[in-house]
Amino acid sequence: MNINPQYLNELIDRCLEEDVGPGDMTTNSVVPPELESTGHIKAKQDGVVAGLPVARAVFGRLDPELNFIPLVEEGAEVAAGTLLARLEGRAGTILTGERLALNFLQRLSGVATLTYRSTRLVKDYPVRIVDTRKTTPGLRYLEKYAVRVGGGHNHRLGLYDAVLIKDNHIKAAGGIRQAVERARRAVPHTAKIEVEAEDLAGVAEALAAGADIIMLDNMNTADMSEAARLVNGRALLEASGGVTADTLPAVAATGVNIISVGALTHSAPALDISLDLGQLKPMRNDIKL
Amino acid sequence: MNINPQYLNELIDRCLEEDVGPGDMTTNSVVPPELESTGHIKAKQDGVVAGLPVARAVFGRLDPELNFIPLVEEGAEVAAGTLLARLEGRAGTILTGERLALNFLQRLSGVATLTYRSTRLVKDYPVRIVDTRKTTPGLRYLEKYAVRVGGGHNHRLGLYDAVLIKDNHIKAAGGIRQAVERARRAVPHTAKIEVEAEDLAGVAEALAAGADIIMLDNMNTADMSEAARLVNGRALLEASGGVTADTLPAVAATGVNIISVGALTHSAPALDISLDLGQLKPMRNDIKL
Amino acid sequence: MNINPQYLNELIDRCLEEDVGPGDMTTNSVVPPELESTGHIKAKQDGVVAGLPVARAVFGRLDPELNFIPLVEEGAEVAAGTLLARLEGRAGTILTGERLALNFLQRLSGVATLTYRSTRLVKDYPVRIVDTRKTTPGLRYLEKYAVRVGGGHNHRLGLYDAVLIKDNHIKAAGGIRQAVERARRAVPHTAKIEVEAEDLAGVAEALAAGADIIMLDNMNTADMSEAARLVNGRALLEASGGVTADTLPAVAATGVNIISVGALTHSAPALDISLDLGQLKPMRNDIKL
Amino acid sequence: MNINPQYLNELIDRCLEEDVGPGDMTTNSVVPPELESTGHIKAKQDGVVAGLPVARAVFGRLDPELNFIPLVEEGAEVAAGTLLARLEGRAGTILTGERLALNFLQRLSGVATLTYRSTRLVKDYPVRIVDTRKTTPGLRYLEKYAVRVGGGHNHRLGLYDAVLIKDNHIKAAGGIRQAVERARRAVPHTAKIEVEAEDLAGVAEALAAGADIIMLDNMNTADMSEAARLVNGRALLEASGGVTADTLPAVAATGVNIISVGALTHSAPALDISLDLGQLKPMRNDIKL
Amino acid sequence: MNINPQYLNELIDRCLEEDVGPGDMTTNSVVPPELESTGHIKAKQDGVVAGLPVARAVFGRLDPELNFIPLVEEGAEVAAGTLLARLEGRAGTILTGERLALNFLQRLSGVATLTYRSTRLVKDYPVRIVDTRKTTPGLRYLEKYAVRVGGGHNHRLGLYDAVLIKDNHIKAAGGIRQAVERARRAVPHTAKIEVEAEDLAGVAEALAAGADIIMLDNMNTADMSEAARLVNGRALLEASGGVTADTLPAVAATGVNIISVGALTHSAPALDISLDLGQLKPMRNDIKL
Amino acid sequence: MNINPQYLNELIDRCLEEDVGPGDMTTNSVVPPELESTGHIKAKQDGVVAGLPVARAVFGRLDPELNFIPLVEEGAEVAAGTLLARLEGRAGTILTGERLALNFLQRLSGVATLTYRSTRLVKDYPVRIVDTRKTTPGLRYLEKYAVRVGGGHNHRLGLYDAVLIKDNHIKAAGGIRQAVERARRAVPHTAKIEVEAEDLAGVAEALAAGADIIMLDNMNTADMSEAARLVNGRALLEASGGVTADTLPAVAATGVNIISVGALTHSAPALDISLDLGQLKPMRNDIKL
Repeated sequence: MNINPQYLNELIDRCLEEDVGPGDMTTNSVVPPELESTGHIKAKQDGVVAGLPVARAVFGRLDPELNFIPLVEEGAEVAAGTLLARLEGRAGTILTGERLALNFLQRLSGVATLTYRSTRLVKDYPVRIVDTRKTTPGLRYLEKYAVRVGGGHNHRLGLYDAVLIKDNHIKAAGGIRQAVERARRAVPHTAKIEVEAEDLAGVAEALAAGADIIMLDNMNTADMSEAARLVNGRALLEASGGVTADTLPAVAATGVNIISVGALTHSAPALDISLDLGQLKPMRNDIKL
Repeated sequence: MNINPQYLNELIDRCLEEDVGPGDMTTNSVVPPELESTGHIKAKQDGVVAGLPVARAVFGRLDPELNFIPLVEEGAEVAAGTLLARLEGRAGTILTGERLALNFLQRLSGVATLTYRSTRLVKDYPVRIVDTRKTTPGLRYLEKYAVRVGGGHNHRLGLYDAVLIKDNHIKAAGGIRQAVERARRAVPHTAKIEVEAEDLAGVAEALAAGADIIMLDNMNTADMSEAARLVNGRALLEASGGVTADTLPAVAATGVNIISVGALTHSAPALDISLDLGQLKPMRNDIKL
Repeated sequence: MNINPQYLNELIDRCLEEDVGPGDMTTNSVVPPELESTGHIKAKQDGVVAGLPVARAVFGRLDPELNFIPLVEEGAEVAAGTLLARLEGRAGTILTGERLALNFLQRLSGVATLTYRSTRLVKDYPVRIVDTRKTTPGLRYLEKYAVRVGGGHNHRLGLYDAVLIKDNHIKAAGGIRQAVERARRAVPHTAKIEVEAEDLAGVAEALAAGADIIMLDNMNTADMSEAARLVNGRALLEASGGVTADTLPAVAATGVNIISVGALTHSAPALDISLDLGQLKPMRNDIKL
Repeated sequence: MNINPQYLNELIDRCLEEDVGPGDMTTNSVVPPELESTGHIKAKQDGVVAGLPVARAVFGRLDPELNFIPLVEEGAEVAAGTLLARLEGRAGTILTGERLALNFLQRLSGVATLTYRSTRLVKDYPVRIVDTRKTTPGLRYLEKYAVRVGGGHNHRLGLYDAVLIKDNHIKAAGGIRQAVERARRAVPHTAKIEVEAEDLAGVAEALAAGADIIMLDNMNTADMSEAARLVNGRALLEASGGVTADTLPAVAATGVNIISVGALTHSAPALDISLDLGQLKPMRNDIKL
Repeated sequence: MNINPQYLNELIDRCLEEDVGPGDMTTNSVVPPELESTGHIKAKQDGVVAGLPVARAVFGRLDPELNFIPLVEEGAEVAAGTLLARLEGRAGTILTGERLALNFLQRLSGVATLTYRSTRLVKDYPVRIVDTRKTTPGLRYLEKYAVRVGGGHNHRLGLYDAVLIKDNHIKAAGGIRQAVERARRAVPHTAKIEVEAEDLAGVAEALAAGADIIMLDNMNTADMSEAARLVNGRALLEASGGVTADTLPAVAATGVNIISVGALTHSAPALDISLDLGQLKPMRNDIKL
Repeated sequence: MNINPQYLNELIDRCLEEDVGPGDMTTNSVVPPELESTGHIKAKQDGVVAGLPVARAVFGRLDPELNFIPLVEEGAEVAAGTLLARLEGRAGTILTGERLALNFLQRLSGVATLTYRSTRLVKDYPVRIVDTRKTTPGLRYLEKYAVRVGGGHNHRLGLYDAVLIKDNHIKAAGGIRQAVERARRAVPHTAKIEVEAEDLAGVAEALAAGADIIMLDNMNTADMSEAARLVNGRALLEASGGVTADTLPAVAATGVNIISVGALTHSAPALDISLDLGQLKPMRNDIKL
């Protein structure tokens, strides 16, 4: 899934510590340890599935012997009622890991679903839907992964991998030209420089300063079209600010290259997903400590 | 704010690592380090504010000399346009910390706002609105804190501090009575035992088994009322499953003691909050390394 | 063993770091790496064994290929001389892990043994022997586990999972009733509230305030009996303070439900346990780095 | 206190996480946050005090503004009833930190007290009482510190800072001479080499092999005296195994240089120490988040 | 210094743990704790100073009250014998922190010095000297910082912030065009794409594929000049591979924009720097634990 | 390789986090995940190989199924062109891990090579070449391991495992005798005491004080010879300061026992080592998440 496995395991261990802590009091006292079972993860709404590898890793950290068999591809568009994965193993492990696995799956599938629906709205335009830095603290890489699973693209990862000069930076530097020059002098030649423009004058100034990307901040579509005409491929244009499902096609039609949508990560409703246990039976007896 | 400070600092450091990584490329190259400024955090929607201490800690980890002055009480109900806090210090620090501070504030205020609105709907009934374990992985304690700020109450923290026997546990144990007995024998005398019931027969059985709390799982309000009559104060009753703003008052009217609402944490929309920088000016020169 | 495996592995890694650090200077220089051996862990005193899964995990973290075969059940009552486990594998690993494995085993078996002997003294009464928060810093979950292995029960895990209102809290709140009310209002409905009482008046007041559990603090047995008569099952009664082997039966006879004994964890003498190496022989040659 | 402060803070944070977790439910709900108080830590038994800096650090991590004033010197021999330290600050902080601070103080003072009493028994001999590696997992550096506070000395820190060749190592190497030679060749010239001897022949062999220190393992005092005569200062002699208060003077009289006593750390009973809160009063109002 | 302070403190704590571990045996036993002193850090070779903020942080982690006063600017070109910083505080702290502080200073100043000398060699050309990923594991951000202090620039931080398509990637993708297209489709629009070319045909192909940067891998200067003529500003050109002080000016003269030099970080000799203690005297007595 | 595996894994994870971060953008987008390949690690200079187990662990942490087959022994003296190891597995993993594996191998082999050459220069003398504490922060244990692989020996690990009294310590203690006495009284009997001497008078004084080891600090060879004559085996003599390849044999001929060479770790040039990918082909399809 293109996520560094050390990172994923550390994250999951921290979240298991949060939910399970010293132990699952209910399961440990009520469920006989020798019981095994199957379990099925099921979508209860239509949507795009993201996070199966994370769910698998949650159960794997609890019990390496539990079997997790995906029944759909990561990124599949599924209808309500579709079984997403099958589990086989110790019943207690399935019950202990259930909530965390579902919390991940529901959130990531929610992000992927909203992203997918957004990309479908602009499928006739050569434009990218991208995320922002308005992600859940601690879950950025997973949420950006879910955006990709849903067919979107990522904006920069954080403050360290690209330059984005906003109005306050411009004010501090004394102007767009000065800001871009300072950045150009200081940052790696591998980093692109993006500049925020609030109007067409700003666009022209950013272009003149040599910006690689120009962010059109809360502009109306008429101005966006004009900006696209003005720039004419000499820089990438990113539309940003308050774009919704209703306005997406019109924005895409202006000729911008990128549309960033904070809501993909900060407002995607969770996709409803559940886990049902199958038949319980005593497992072949193994050494148990 | 009743959150262990070691926990909060560790969480923030991890999230700064995620967003800032080795350094804020834009601010470091564009904003002269000697510039100082004020900044104002402002609500752009009506809502209940939660997370000011977290925002303060974010800036404090970046620069202990930055001043963060709350302008409203944590938990205040504010109108769009209200200034929530004032910052004074190095302009670069304010810009570097802005996004993480807002990401926390927006989410926690979103949770507090939804909670507050839910509690207002049932204010005429002696009933608690509580959260669930459907929280964002890694942010459970903060989200539960935001529920309290919004006037709600918390359900158990995790799998380790209370017993909640669900249908699968009952199946594994061979019945409600057996499940409650096993739990009672094994867990600390300080832990309450809650049992899920799907119908009135289940309620009666759970009561007979000595459950401290009975969760009425997706019951209709008629059955809830009957359950309340049946139990008559001998156990706490918790309504759970699919309760929405529309149905909250009717559920509260049944006489249950607790209503748990997963949406408080898994579906609260973020409250829109922004940060504006004030006048920039060179700061009194201090030793800078 | 009902201990979160991530927690156990992290603890063991930290303790190996403490004892082995960058490497076992003696074994690495003196013991040829190709030697393999058996080893036997042996009780040198009568007692109850606790910690075999921990010992196994210590060796497993050092070398996943080392075989650890328990020869008795966890919790078994054994006589001096009983072999507890057999090891098979690289001789160097056995020697490097020996001390830490034994340090855990000796301490946990000491706790289990003292707990077991305490429970035997009151076996004719419907009473629980429970631990306290007077545990070794850093080892609480393991020590509480050992108490369970020895037939005892656990009190709350820490300050976060149950309410225990002591004299100082009462003073700060302005009275028992006020303290219980404040707690009841603020804490999850899943948390029980326990109140300390120093005399029968306190017991009556706590009962009236609706305490779920009343701790009889350093009361004499006459007062305990009277408290039991007074409360008559409407709250759990916990005897606490200075209970010893000599006084346990008399305290149990008063009708209290729980007796908490700090000494289970803060004063249990270690059980003497040793490890003996068997025949040394060169192992089948595997790739060694 | 000669303990790396980073190490101490990390240890305390981990132990606060264990005891306080997400928060002290009782204090947070019952004790008004604006109350301040004094507190006194008092010895309830005669003994030697160790751990005041650790206790101070526990409260300091919870609240840097709490005042902790030691009233006796670290290492002081005190009578029951002596006040050891005075606290001034927020009442809630004192109550939340009390148990962990006392758990450290009681254990470390227990170790220091037993050590001190052991050294007094041999004060007329030029001999050192030293600890072993039979320490509590996770607390070795603090327990070794407490041994020093009590007037004892430390043996090696772990497996990484000195060579100790035991019977199994000798067996694996094919003899004492071979083992010492291998070690000498491999380890830093700064590391001493100690060899275990079970009888006088072993002592002679170890001496001939050039051991810096010879451990007399479970020898009787007659053999120890003979060993001392034989070695005559050419190596240090360490008596080890089953030495008790009763036998200490006789062992010291044999002329050995060092007596190692595992019980200093694995069996020292905790020193009884308590904390009493003083008058509670509202504090001058400071910014509270 | 544009390094995230959380990152720096964590790194230093880990390195203090490595060097000081449980404590500085020599200083703790030999140097009276009440002695205070000055100390001077002195360059013993000509060079460019980098790492003063790191050295300051090393002493600050050990003792926040120690005074560290830089006597030259970070990045200053100094002659042998120049005093770089003055320390005032507890003598023991200065001695304990000395080695780690110098280890950092010597290495970072070595990198800055080599970088500075390299940039001087090409000062008449519009070309950047940049580093590579051939940094010391664990010290990349500090070494890249030292390159900047020395007047050089940074290449990408790691594998996550820019695309660099090498020969093996091209082979795997089936050609330069395919590789660039795949990358362009997948990566953020903020990331530049660099392609390695081994000859002029490769340069032409990379240019046609739309590479932002073309790396001329081990080309001779004639080919580099031809590449520069061919590309004519439509992409950045980076010379890479085996460039030394002798060949730098000739490479710069070819018209490439960037010259990457792995030796800046993997082979910079340490700059010789020492610390001398001044007069020792007892400090004003403060509470010492 | 006698390095604690927990330590090694933690170090590698940290370094992978540094280089790979959230993911290898190039490989993930350009290299089809189903491609597998061989790879060969090759020496491009003559030297001594150290670090094969570290390189193996780097790839193992990324993908446990990747095969790493060493083709020479750790510590082998190899000619330029020698293949050192063969890799088999997913092509993407090989490309992602390549740089970190080589960064370790090149540095450790550089240290081993310089050490080996130094030991060859004095092979006719009974003298040890040892390292110092002038190691790379964070890599001490690995660099000391590489010194051993190259045929050298280690000096103390850090400040915690042996006493080394330098001029400043002597000044603080009031003289050599006083310093040695203080140390002797305080430190474990297992720790040797080394004293720095600047002239023959210092040597005599250190010997009289009972130093185990005397460091001859920057002495000329005539004085070293005289010191060896004077001490005559009653203490170990360590030559230290400015010893180079040119002067090594003359120093060894003076009769000192140990020669410490800081340059082994702070100035060893990296050994040039590369990795070449073999034929790429689609792998047998396994479940891929």
